[in-house]
Amino acid sequence: MSTSFALDHDVTRWGAAPSGGGLDQRARDFLDQHVGAATPPVDEPAWDDVRVPPGRLSAESVGTLAAIVGSGALKVDDASRRRHAGGLSYLDLLARRRDEITAPDAVVFPRTAAQVAAVLAWCETNDVAVLAFGGGTSVVGGLRTEGVPKSSISLDMSRMADLIDVDAESHLARVGPGMTGPDLERLLAPRGFTLGHYPQSWHRASIGGYAATRSAGQASTGYGRSDDMIESLEVVTPRGTIRVGRVAASAAGPDLRALFVGSEGAFGVITEVTLRIRSVPAARSYTAVMFPDYESGVQAFRQLAQQRVAADVMRLSDPQETAVTMAMSGPGGRGGEILDRYLRARRATDPSLAILGWEGSRASVVLRRLEGLSVLRRNRGISLGPTVGDAWLRHRFDGPFLRDDLLDAGYLVETLETATHWSRVADLRTNVSAALADTLSTSGRAYVMSHLSHVYETGASLYFTVVAVQDARPGEQWRLAKAAATEVIVDHGATITHHHGVGRDHAPWLPAEIGTEGVGILAAVKHHLDPQGILNPGVLGLD
Amino acid sequence: MSTSFALDHDVTRWGAAPSGGGLDQRARDFLDQHVGAATPPVDEPAWDDVRVPPGRLSAESVGTLAAIVGSGALKVDDASRRRHAGGLSYLDLLARRRDEITAPDAVVFPRTAAQVAAVLAWCETNDVAVLAFGGGTSVVGGLRTEGVPKSSISLDMSRMADLIDVDAESHLARVGPGMTGPDLERLLAPRGFTLGHYPQSWHRASIGGYAATRSAGQASTGYGRSDDMIESLEVVTPRGTIRVGRVAASAAGPDLRALFVGSEGAFGVITEVTLRIRSVPAARSYTAVMFPDYESGVQAFRQLAQQRVAADVMRLSDPQETAVTMAMSGPGGRGGEILDRYLRARRATDPSLAILGWEGSRASVVLRRLEGLSVLRRNRGISLGPTVGDAWLRHRFDGPFLRDDLLDAGYLVETLETATHWSRVADLRTNVSAALADTLSTSGRAYVMSHLSHVYETGASLYFTVVAVQDARPGEQWRLAKAAATEVIVDHGATITHHHGVGRDHAPWLPAEIGTEGVGILAAVKHHLDPQGILNPGVLGLD
Repeated sequence: MSTSFALDHDVTRWGAAPSGGGLDQRARDFLDQHVGAATPPVDEPAWDDVRVPPGRLSAESVGTLAAIVGSGALKVDDASRRRHAGGLSYLDLLARRRDEITAPDAVVFPRTAAQVAAVLAWCETNDVAVLAFGGGTSVVGGLRTEGVPKSSISLDMSRMADLIDVDAESHLARVGPGMTGPDLERLLAPRGFTLGHYPQSWHRASIGGYAATRSAGQASTGYGRSDDMIESLEVVTPRGTIRVGRVAASAAGPDLRALFVGSEGAFGVITEVTLRIRSVPAARSYTAVMFPDYESGVQAFRQLAQQRVAADVMRLSDPQETAVTMAMSGPGGRGGEILDRYLRARRATDPSLAILGWEGSRASVVLRRLEGLSVLRRNRGISLGPTVGDAWLRHRFDGPFLRDDLLDAGYLVETLETATHWSRVADLRTNVSAALADTLSTSGRAYVMSHLSHVYETGASLYFTVVAVQDARPGEQWRLAKAAATEVIVDHGATITHHHGVGRDHAPWLPAEIGTEGVGILAAVKHHLDPQGILNPGVLGLD
Repeated sequence: MSTSFALDHDVTRWGAAPSGGGLDQRARDFLDQHVGAATPPVDEPAWDDVRVPPGRLSAESVGTLAAIVGSGALKVDDASRRRHAGGLSYLDLLARRRDEITAPDAVVFPRTAAQVAAVLAWCETNDVAVLAFGGGTSVVGGLRTEGVPKSSISLDMSRMADLIDVDAESHLARVGPGMTGPDLERLLAPRGFTLGHYPQSWHRASIGGYAATRSAGQASTGYGRSDDMIESLEVVTPRGTIRVGRVAASAAGPDLRALFVGSEGAFGVITEVTLRIRSVPAARSYTAVMFPDYESGVQAFRQLAQQRVAADVMRLSDPQETAVTMAMSGPGGRGGEILDRYLRARRATDPSLAILGWEGSRASVVLRRLEGLSVLRRNRGISLGPTVGDAWLRHRFDGPFLRDDLLDAGYLVETLETATHWSRVADLRTNVSAALADTLSTSGRAYVMSHLSHVYETGASLYFTVVAVQDARPGEQWRLAKAAATEVIVDHGATITHHHGVGRDHAPWLPAEIGTEGVGILAAVKHHLDPQGILNPGVLGLD
């Protein structure tokens, strides 16, 4: 048990859960009953002892780079390099715990777009790879230097984190890419604005990272994905600096914003983001609704989306995720009794819990909630009132924090996500769940659960979480399960990723998604903007 | 007076206005008073007499192409080539009336994507340009062969116009690119669906054309732009066939849909479109609202968008457009009296008329209308009731049809459009209007009017219409005015086109919009997909 990992909460662990969670007795009981006992790993190195391979940049190179950004803004010490080694996927966490990391050869902290351009120019001349680093929260291997065949630097954007300008009339904010979500909300709140983007990695992820990965947040059904929020981007490429996006909508040729949103650092370094912001909602209402079966819930969510009365937050847990939620934080007392009676009365063998949240003006929340709840009721949903909804709101960032505890206890825990059309949701859920459960059964039982969220008129995303007992080769164990699930996703015509991105982990399946012709287009753009191939080589399958 | 143009309503003219409009006495009075008398042009050729340059394809070439698509599906006669010469901009119409057209050397009507691929392969080998032709409604020179330095064929997609499949559960329709809006609505209606896309060119424009040009329609504030409606596209390129877009939202790298939507035939030929469709609304409510001044109307529209209670159709006429509307179809009788009293009471020197339309479930229309009207009232808007709203709905496709009558009478008439942020709307309108009025004053007074529509949270589009007396060189007269207006637009940081597209006419200003770096990216994609440069050379400034 490497409690010493806690020494750098900032990196390998997410730190103690903000709501004070952790593996409490209820969680341990649930795991014992549904997954089985795991053996805590031994001999994991303390975080400070995780070995970093020797740096490969010459003293002269280090000196030149330091001259560009200032000597305090370049780090080659082990601690800095360790902190920038990889992201936060299960495989990344495992590599640290197994003392098997690779790391960038230096960490550079630019302050201006001009410094970014100068660093890129030097790296191009010297054939050094550049990995732009925002919050370091990639869960798809987007920040791993493993396999990068050249020296590399991590370009840490945390010093470019200003709120540059707010156009209050147009609801626009220009920000530095290194700003985090909490910092932005803190700066916008006194002006009466919010971004409303809440990915689970919210405490750390950066605005530039949102853009680079096409991230979605828990309120994206109402507030939009990062794609929708980006009015314009400034991007520094080896070919020069480009500004894409001018106004919300244009017909001035193809929308080049879409080429850089989701480019994961392979086409350029995002140095400024102009975001659409919203007024802080005057009212919020969160509620939980229980359906007697999953299908009823899916139908209700579909109707809400297609009738354009979707809530701002919409999440439908499948029966497995519902069981976990109810075991951990279901309503006790009177609420719990009513629920039990209801479920018995409906002979609900597959109860499925939904969380819905409305935000906006008081009138808008009241009216939309009214209309929404009537659709839910017509589909046999029963409102549990605000208690469970509020509990979810309080605990909604806990997931990533619990992962460290589960790894400490010897469990495999990871998530994957996809999106598909409504007509395929039920089958896809069944088949992905089965593929994960089957391949993870090597070490005993696996617990697979999912929720449907990010609701669109034509479909929705599915987000799976698995917990299993680690076997002797836990990395390989997950890789096989992930591959099996992804094959099912591809066979169903669903997308290989709804909001996590491609990174290095999804790259083998990108041709199945966009065709070799699609990859060819990306490669042509890459070759044009980055002929030397220095920008995050390997992500999107591009070199 | 070339009444004989009426012989081919289908092409040079839009035909009689569907609502039976035309230049009635009220229109003639308004023109006399506000623009001045024009002299009808003489010696315009009859449509059948407009000269077509000799075709440049050899008999052998024609035979080979005919073998690909079938002999009945290739036309080289003058009438067919004339019908495919250019689009429907003022300059296009003028060229026909001046007997100065260029034309493609043949018109090919493919039936399948495989035939499109074979035609492209032959054209690549033989260095023949390919201009995909949907409804032929480009108003930015997207279909003009003038300046194309090689032989060219028009690829008329009208035989690929099937409704291939409807996924009713997922609200998706797969259609052939050659289908028109009216045909699609006719096929969807019995199934309870609608696309809800109503560009002014609706009677003719094709679905493939919507995608190729990023079109927007009159109800786009509610139903979304064509960009928003496209779930996936199949595109045949000289490099092979690509399918872009899989589900509504994905993070599988950059969204390649956005590279083909708006590509105007320069990257490939769209051979299939999967569209998001909606249930036919159970209720509709259109109303007109009068503001005492333009600024109040802009503020009301901004608040509706930013409070996310926008109507599905939103259009705010400036005082000049309001004057025209009221002169042509304002309320008479009791409604007219009330309005006059209201305007006098408010000392409204700049009355501005808004049209708002809500569509959806009965409950949704009632609730959203209620909330919307309260915002409008708070901004000094007074509802005129449904009369004017319904009149607008009835006449909303008339604009293009009136153009022919105005040209017959010797007037210059054209439109241009842009979009900008809310904080710049008022200045941009003032300055573009002034630039147009100034440059068009060579021939006397010009009447410039505009409306604001296509409302977004961060901004809106502005759509200008000008009427002036033609001077001795009417083409040059318009080119100068358009250039002056576009310079103002660029200087304001607005977009050079919100939904008309770039074509050949806007191409000189595309670098000002997306930078030479942006044009460089488009050129790299073009070179990758179309190394021989056969696809619609000249549009987007690409060869």
